[in-house]
Amino acid sequence: MAEVRNKKVVLRDYVVGFPKESDMKTVEGSIRLKVPEGSNDVLLKNLYLSCDPYMRILMNKVESIDMHHHYTPSSPLIGYGVSKVMESGHSDYKKGDLVWGITKWEEYSFISPSQISFKIHHTHVPLSYYTGILGMPGMTAYVGFFKLCSPRKGENVYVSAASGAVGQLVGQFAKLSGCYVVGSAGSRDKVDLLKNKLGFDEAFNYKEESDLNATLKRYFPEGIDIYFENVGGKTLDAVLPNMRLHGRIPVCGMVSQYNLTQPEGVTNLAHLIFKRIKMEGFLVTDFYHLYPKFLEFVLPLIKEGKVVYVEDIVEGLENAPAALVGLYTGRNVGKQVVVVADE
Amino acid sequence: MAEVRNKKVVLRDYVVGFPKESDMKTVEGSIRLKVPEGSNDVLLKNLYLSCDPYMRILMNKVESIDMHHHYTPSSPLIGYGVSKVMESGHSDYKKGDLVWGITKWEEYSFISPSQISFKIHHTHVPLSYYTGILGMPGMTAYVGFFKLCSPRKGENVYVSAASGAVGQLVGQFAKLSGCYVVGSAGSRDKVDLLKNKLGFDEAFNYKEESDLNATLKRYFPEGIDIYFENVGGKTLDAVLPNMRLHGRIPVCGMVSQYNLTQPEGVTNLAHLIFKRIKMEGFLVTDFYHLYPKFLEFVLPLIKEGKVVYVEDIVEGLENAPAALVGLYTGRNVGKQVVVVADE
Repeated sequence: MAEVRNKKVVLRDYVVGFPKESDMKTVEGSIRLKVPEGSNDVLLKNLYLSCDPYMRILMNKVESIDMHHHYTPSSPLIGYGVSKVMESGHSDYKKGDLVWGITKWEEYSFISPSQISFKIHHTHVPLSYYTGILGMPGMTAYVGFFKLCSPRKGENVYVSAASGAVGQLVGQFAKLSGCYVVGSAGSRDKVDLLKNKLGFDEAFNYKEESDLNATLKRYFPEGIDIYFENVGGKTLDAVLPNMRLHGRIPVCGMVSQYNLTQPEGVTNLAHLIFKRIKMEGFLVTDFYHLYPKFLEFVLPLIKEGKVVYVEDIVEGLENAPAALVGLYTGRNVGKQVVVVADE
Repeated sequence: MAEVRNKKVVLRDYVVGFPKESDMKTVEGSIRLKVPEGSNDVLLKNLYLSCDPYMRILMNKVESIDMHHHYTPSSPLIGYGVSKVMESGHSDYKKGDLVWGITKWEEYSFISPSQISFKIHHTHVPLSYYTGILGMPGMTAYVGFFKLCSPRKGENVYVSAASGAVGQLVGQFAKLSGCYVVGSAGSRDKVDLLKNKLGFDEAFNYKEESDLNATLKRYFPEGIDIYFENVGGKTLDAVLPNMRLHGRIPVCGMVSQYNLTQPEGVTNLAHLIFKRIKMEGFLVTDFYHLYPKFLEFVLPLIKEGKVVYVEDIVEGLENAPAALVGLYTGRNVGKQVVVVADE
């Protein structure tokens, strides 16, 4: 069998500070579309790739993170995606199956079946949703909000990075739970989106607020019960004195800190004590056993229009580096997806 | 009935920075030893007063804390103590009862029954223990370690302020649970105490360590499962990168920060995410319903000599200000108690 072209996005070198498009490059490899004899890998045609904030951390040189393999120079980036099985060395998958899970930033990938999160059975929704609302970010919002926070009707919820892949869902889940929800984001367009499309009670542009503590006091005169933490640093420090008794802070991400060589210091942690606040980091991968339950919950909501999902879709693998870099400058509006190939 | 002398320790003025003896003064008041007609207060003769790190926070001017009333200038300090009932306006208490709970820094106090934590039924132990191992600090160690951490045999436990009222018990409870336990304290004597009397596996003087991160790596080459947080600031920042997956940080206190007008910044909080760490502030008062269970657990251990308790006992109310101030310079060795009167 002849080899075919396999375009890839590879890391040029480890990254220090904010990532740039030039930290990655698109190269043309080639691939034989055949699972090698004796391998139980699955050969995937990648359809959609997901740009996620955590990916920046994998571009660092040193630190070892238990969650993922770090990226290495000249190798393709690794991340979540939606793919079609072309050939399978494993009995769980067969040609034509649609799957979502960990794949590589290239046109075709050999992937160990252990990297695949789930087979896709429901295709009456956009397939790209499996990089977002029906994939890792959706499960992250579900687990972080419902499982870690046990929200009650009437509670006050603050979501940072609120128009992002996870934040927009946390806000909607909170409204469905009868909470008061305020979101922050980094542009007026995003604030409009939060208030007018995503149903947040209030929203503000954090870049226009000079005193975040005062801003939070204005939106939460009685304090915050749940702070869904996506950004870290100064925002967390302003949140802590505004938390209520028995507040909960699920720590989903700290995107404002990932590009800093010296992270911002958080000085208000003593508030954890007197207010009995629980602050808990989590990784969605620990909760994937709940995925079927999550689908039962969220698919009807999508169908009935009770939950909407905003995607920012870019066409072509060669535009993926710019799309990824855009996450850290806040260029994306909604979930950032890259289309690699048509279904 | 004639009035009798009632010596008191009052706050001179709100405190900024480290507290000094001169921020308090001993004054002689007088009191009529009779519960006023119609009052349901209890008249207490105070026997032992407890010096606890949280008291510094109540000396601040501004901040409102939900837990306690702040101290006000010219009024006696308020804190835990062991007292004898002289007269009672409430049917739950009668003359001669011994009680522990919130009282005032004076010889005799009128106290609302709601401020009394518990009646003392077991007197085969030193009565002063009800300011420590059998009182609020004992319950704090029990709840913080067992209830918040769910420790498992073989886990690695680090305790800061380890020779203090709470820390010395956390270390012993951890050993009883089959954990490996390292404590830190601020003098060689305290380190000796930890290793030779309290049964910690290892202990170090944090003042002699220039690189706490390296120190922790040395004592915990495989990382820390449970960090019992008593001090905050730089110590917490050094601990976070040394935590293991699914680590737990019960936040009992942050004594290193209470005297700072600008608390130290904690920069390593992103470790919460990838390591799925739970950091949880707590106040023991939320758990007092467990006190009978705690007594059942701890009284036999004391009797059998399986748990010991180190007290630092000072005689006389007039020496109480120095004793309290000594907590913040680390002068006390073990639980700091003030004897006000003989039983």
